[in-house]
Amino acid sequence: MVFERVAIVGLGLLGGSLGLALGEHCPEIATSGFDADPDTRARAAERKLVGTVASTLDEAVADADLVVLCVPVGAMGAVARELSGKLKPGAVVSDVGSCKASVQRALSQALPEQIVIPAHPVAGTEQSGPDAGFAALFQQRWCILTPPEGAPEEQLSALTQLWERLGAHVETMDAQHHDLVLAVTSHLPHLIAYTIVGTASDLEDVTQGEVIKYSAGGFRDFTRIAASDPTMWRDVFLNNKDAVLEMLQVFSEDLTRLQRAIRRDDGEALFDLFSRTRAIRRSIIEQGQDDARPDFGRKDH
Amino acid sequence: MVFERVAIVGLGLLGGSLGLALGEHCPEIATSGFDADPDTRARAAERKLVGTVASTLDEAVADADLVVLCVPVGAMGAVARELSGKLKPGAVVSDVGSCKASVQRALSQALPEQIVIPAHPVAGTEQSGPDAGFAALFQQRWCILTPPEGAPEEQLSALTQLWERLGAHVETMDAQHHDLVLAVTSHLPHLIAYTIVGTASDLEDVTQGEVIKYSAGGFRDFTRIAASDPTMWRDVFLNNKDAVLEMLQVFSEDLTRLQRAIRRDDGEALFDLFSRTRAIRRSIIEQGQDDARPDFGRKDH
Repeated sequence: MVFERVAIVGLGLLGGSLGLALGEHCPEIATSGFDADPDTRARAAERKLVGTVASTLDEAVADADLVVLCVPVGAMGAVARELSGKLKPGAVVSDVGSCKASVQRALSQALPEQIVIPAHPVAGTEQSGPDAGFAALFQQRWCILTPPEGAPEEQLSALTQLWERLGAHVETMDAQHHDLVLAVTSHLPHLIAYTIVGTASDLEDVTQGEVIKYSAGGFRDFTRIAASDPTMWRDVFLNNKDAVLEMLQVFSEDLTRLQRAIRRDDGEALFDLFSRTRAIRRSIIEQGQDDARPDFGRKDH
Repeated sequence: MVFERVAIVGLGLLGGSLGLALGEHCPEIATSGFDADPDTRARAAERKLVGTVASTLDEAVADADLVVLCVPVGAMGAVARELSGKLKPGAVVSDVGSCKASVQRALSQALPEQIVIPAHPVAGTEQSGPDAGFAALFQQRWCILTPPEGAPEEQLSALTQLWERLGAHVETMDAQHHDLVLAVTSHLPHLIAYTIVGTASDLEDVTQGEVIKYSAGGFRDFTRIAASDPTMWRDVFLNNKDAVLEMLQVFSEDLTRLQRAIRRDDGEALFDLFSRTRAIRRSIIEQGQDDARPDFGRKDH
C-alpha cells in the first residue's frame, strides 16, 4: 500500500516543510493543505507549500488517504474532533507533534474509526510560520513513530517508507518512552534556554543593551532556541508535564552539585565534567546530527 | 604611538586568531609567538599563525612593545611572573582572558614596571588548539578593555585602534562590571550547557545513544558550547566565582518559578515568558551579534 493523496493540516514550519519535501521527493503524491489562518493560507499558496491550498478543512482532507496534523499539540484534539466523520474510510491519521502520549490519546479518542499512527520528526529551526519551511528540514534527521498497540503493519510500513523518502531515518518506540527521551533532548533544553534569556533580560546591575552587545560569549546560542514559537512550546510543557518536571529535577540537582564545586574551588570536579561532555559532542557530529564547522554545515535555503 | 612588534603568548584558538588577524589587517606589524607545548609551536609554525614562532618565552617577547597573553586565566599570573624583568621598558602587557578583575590583579602584581591594559574580545568557538584559529574571529565582535586607574591615554588609544583594525568594536569598562556582565552573557550559559549535557549522559531510563540520536531537538546546541576547552572554563569559574554564583542564584529562582508554572498548568505564564524572549533575539540579530539564517551567517574559514 502507498499513499496517493496526503493532506496537511497546519502550514507553519513543519507543515510547510513537509509539503515542500513531498513535492520534491514524491512528486507523484497529490498534496492538499489547510490552515485556520487566512493569511497563512494565502502565503502557503504563494510559496506553493502544497499542491492545493484548500479554503476549508473538509475540502483539504476529503480525498486524503493520509492526513498529517501539523498544529500545536494542544490543538490536536480539537482539530481531530473537527475531522470526525469527514475522512475516507481507512484513511491514516498522523501528526508531527513533539509529545506523543497525549496526542495519541487525543487522536484515538476523537477518531476511533481511523487508523492513527502518531509521528515526530525530530527536526526544526527557531523560525515559525508559512515562510519558515524548507524541503531539506528532514534530511538526516530521525522521525519517531509511536504506533498504538495493534496498529496495522501495512499502514505502518507505508508511513515509514514515506518519511524515509523525505530523507529521514525512522525509529519506532512506545509513546511514553518517546516523551521521556524528548524531555531530555528537546523539552528541557528549550525550558532552560527560555529561562536564562528571561533571567538575563530582568537584571538590575546589567542592562539589556549590555546583554545584547556581549551575547557572542555564548548567550546568543540560547536566544536562538528561546525564539521558538511560544504557542507550540507552551503546549509541549503542558502536555509532557510529568517527564519535563522529572528531568528538571535531575538537572537542578546536578546544577546544585556544580554550584557547590565552584563555591569550594573544586577545580578537579569542574574539569572532570567539562572533559566528559566533549565526548558526547564528538558522537553527535560523528552520527551526522550536527556539524563541527563554524557554519554547522547549515546552508541557506 | 603605534605598536611595531607584538608578541603573543599562547597559540590556541584566541592567540592563533589574533596572530592571523594581525597578519591580515596589520601586515607592517612584526608578530612573534610562543606556546609552552612543543606540538602547538610546531603546528603554529606550519599554519604561520605568527611571523616568528620562538622556541623560548624570553625570545618571543624580547623586542615586543605589546605582549598579549592568550593563556587560560588561571595561568596568567605564572606566565606574567616568568616575564618579569624580560620586557622592554614601556612595553604594554595585555591579554584576552574571559575574567578581568583577577587577571588585572595578577598582571599588575607580577609586572609593576609595565603598562598593563587587560582586554577581552568577546568572540570564540567551541574549538581549541593551534588548528582552531581564524583571522575573521573578531569581525563585528566587541572587545572590552578594562584599563586600571591612571592607565596612560596614549597606550590605551593605541590598543583600542589595534583591536578596531582587526574588525572589533571596542568598549571600555571597569573590570568588576565586566565580570558581572560576562557572568550573564557567557559564563552562566556555559555552566548551564555543561550541566545539562552531563545530566543527559547520566540518565537511567534514557540511553546515551538515544540522547545523541535525537539531539537535533535542541540538545545539540548545548553540546556545542559544552565542547569548549575544559581548562579554560574551569579557570573562568574559579576566577569569576562571586559573579557566577550570584547569577546562578537568580537563574535558579527563575527556573523554580517556571517549574511551578508547569506544575500548576499555568499556560499564560509560560506563553508570556516565551513571547518576551523573542524580542531579545531580534535585537541581537539587528545588532549583528548573530544571524537569522539557518547557517547563522557563519561560513567556513
